[in-house]
Amino acid sequence: MHADAITATPSPRSLTSLAAHGVWSPVLVPLRPDLSIDSERFVAHAHWLLAQGCHGLALFGTTSEANSFSVSERKALLERVVEAGISPERLMVGTGCCALTDSVELTRHAVDAGCRRVLMLPPFYYKGMSDEGIFRSFAEVIERVGNPDLRVFLYHFPRLSGVPVTEGLIALLVGAFPEVVAGVKDSSGDWSNTAMMLDRFSQLAIFPGSEVFLLDGLRAGGAGCITATSNVNAAGARAIFDAWRTGRDDADARQAAATAVRRAVDRHPGIPAQKFLIARHRSDPAWRAVRPPMTALADDAGRDLLDGLSATEFDGARLAIR
Amino acid sequence: MHADAITATPSPRSLTSLAAHGVWSPVLVPLRPDLSIDSERFVAHAHWLLAQGCHGLALFGTTSEANSFSVSERKALLERVVEAGISPERLMVGTGCCALTDSVELTRHAVDAGCRRVLMLPPFYYKGMSDEGIFRSFAEVIERVGNPDLRVFLYHFPRLSGVPVTEGLIALLVGAFPEVVAGVKDSSGDWSNTAMMLDRFSQLAIFPGSEVFLLDGLRAGGAGCITATSNVNAAGARAIFDAWRTGRDDADARQAAATAVRRAVDRHPGIPAQKFLIARHRSDPAWRAVRPPMTALADDAGRDLLDGLSATEFDGARLAIR
Repeated sequence: MHADAITATPSPRSLTSLAAHGVWSPVLVPLRPDLSIDSERFVAHAHWLLAQGCHGLALFGTTSEANSFSVSERKALLERVVEAGISPERLMVGTGCCALTDSVELTRHAVDAGCRRVLMLPPFYYKGMSDEGIFRSFAEVIERVGNPDLRVFLYHFPRLSGVPVTEGLIALLVGAFPEVVAGVKDSSGDWSNTAMMLDRFSQLAIFPGSEVFLLDGLRAGGAGCITATSNVNAAGARAIFDAWRTGRDDADARQAAATAVRRAVDRHPGIPAQKFLIARHRSDPAWRAVRPPMTALADDAGRDLLDGLSATEFDGARLAIR
Repeated sequence: MHADAITATPSPRSLTSLAAHGVWSPVLVPLRPDLSIDSERFVAHAHWLLAQGCHGLALFGTTSEANSFSVSERKALLERVVEAGISPERLMVGTGCCALTDSVELTRHAVDAGCRRVLMLPPFYYKGMSDEGIFRSFAEVIERVGNPDLRVFLYHFPRLSGVPVTEGLIALLVGAFPEVVAGVKDSSGDWSNTAMMLDRFSQLAIFPGSEVFLLDGLRAGGAGCITATSNVNAAGARAIFDAWRTGRDDADARQAAATAVRRAVDRHPGIPAQKFLIARHRSDPAWRAVRPPMTALADDAGRDLLDGLSATEFDGARLAIR
């Protein structure tokens, strides 16, 4: 089943398979002045991302400031998103928390809401845990949820979590739950790690965590990418995917263009920087807010960001399209 | 007020002041076979720790596996502990989570339960945040709880949290909330950092996170220690404190003895190792359980631990005293 979904020329039908492929956006979460989640602005942005060409949306990964929100806040937003008509088939829901019981609650909630794909960080407070211990964390969640519909995408982001999803851990999980473990988001930023995963786990949908590796990943059998910068340049990432899928000769040029945008954004803290861009190009200053411990992008940093982007194909006007 | 509580020869009265001093134990949390919290074994262990000489108990720091439990599990245990007759004046409750809303909920709950002292980690998923951003996190909690009874102890454990409580952050917090910010638990394991805090923030109760630094800390104006190993050697740490307080000449010998025990335990993962010792000396195997991602101490590691302790003054028989 998974192998079908990551063939070199996926059919439109495979978009709704239980694996996943293409350009997925980990959606930014706008806030109200009291720092609560602004679900109406969120829903509008989610629709915009899909209209811009995202194949799916990752709700409550790092870019969603997921770990800054409580379990109940996360559940409430997911319910609102599904209620607003965004298909659960287009969603991958972040559910991996430090507390086993929180991960179980969020995962069960997602599957019950029809969202069969979840993106799971390992528990990330305690460092230096064994693969066996982290395996048990995932296994407890999978077994307690106990729903054969569940598909787990492992979330490897060692720079922030401090807890790597190692080759050995993936092997343990794939061995024990071959029908459940469906893929990996590799946010290591280390292509050699992504290449290892592609080589060793060909049955999984491997998503680099940045569009910088999108074309290399697709050519090596990867599933696509789940990339933060799609919040401001979804069309740029989608253009790479389409050029590759249809065999057009501008795939490398599209990759270079999107990479340049990414590099310009990466000179600033990613979440505040992208919220700044959306606020500016939608003339909607409320979008700038972040939840502590983040801080909103300062005006001078914002000017620097715009300067950097002016040398790229970044198209701010697209952000205003509704 | 805080200055009184950390004078070189504290009076018994200051034990109940809003600062704190002495030997505080971050209490291990026993589990049932289904990995839920075994509150009855917990209460018995808490009473044992106080009977062994602990001045107070830190509930839901690292040693309590706090971040492996949900907000509702943490609230339920605190309620049970207070109901069981352990004075809120003897408690310091860990309330610092990744999610602002969780930290607010737990802090409000602790203060409402009569526990005015809370131990707060900074939000620890996002790394590299500015002091200003982390300051805002603490400030939002303090302001939203809005209770003048609250006393916050900052929890510096960079090896696990990945987010240091820097000198600059403490200065911001002390400047903005001089009545609320009451102390620091310094689990850096770096005496030079503890010495800096003692020197720079003499108005705060500074607790090294290990009894290895207890005597040095007391002599330099520190408040005592909050130390994991007190779960198996509370009397050893208390003996240091009493020798220092009464000016006896065996303070250094008591320190050397407790340090040797600590070093022997530190050769193994601390939480599983101490649970192993309690299980063994109380003939209560249920105590060995840990919640994933931790794993229980293996039998051979347990034998190695016991071997190492046999060369110290560790007294396993004490653990069985009820």
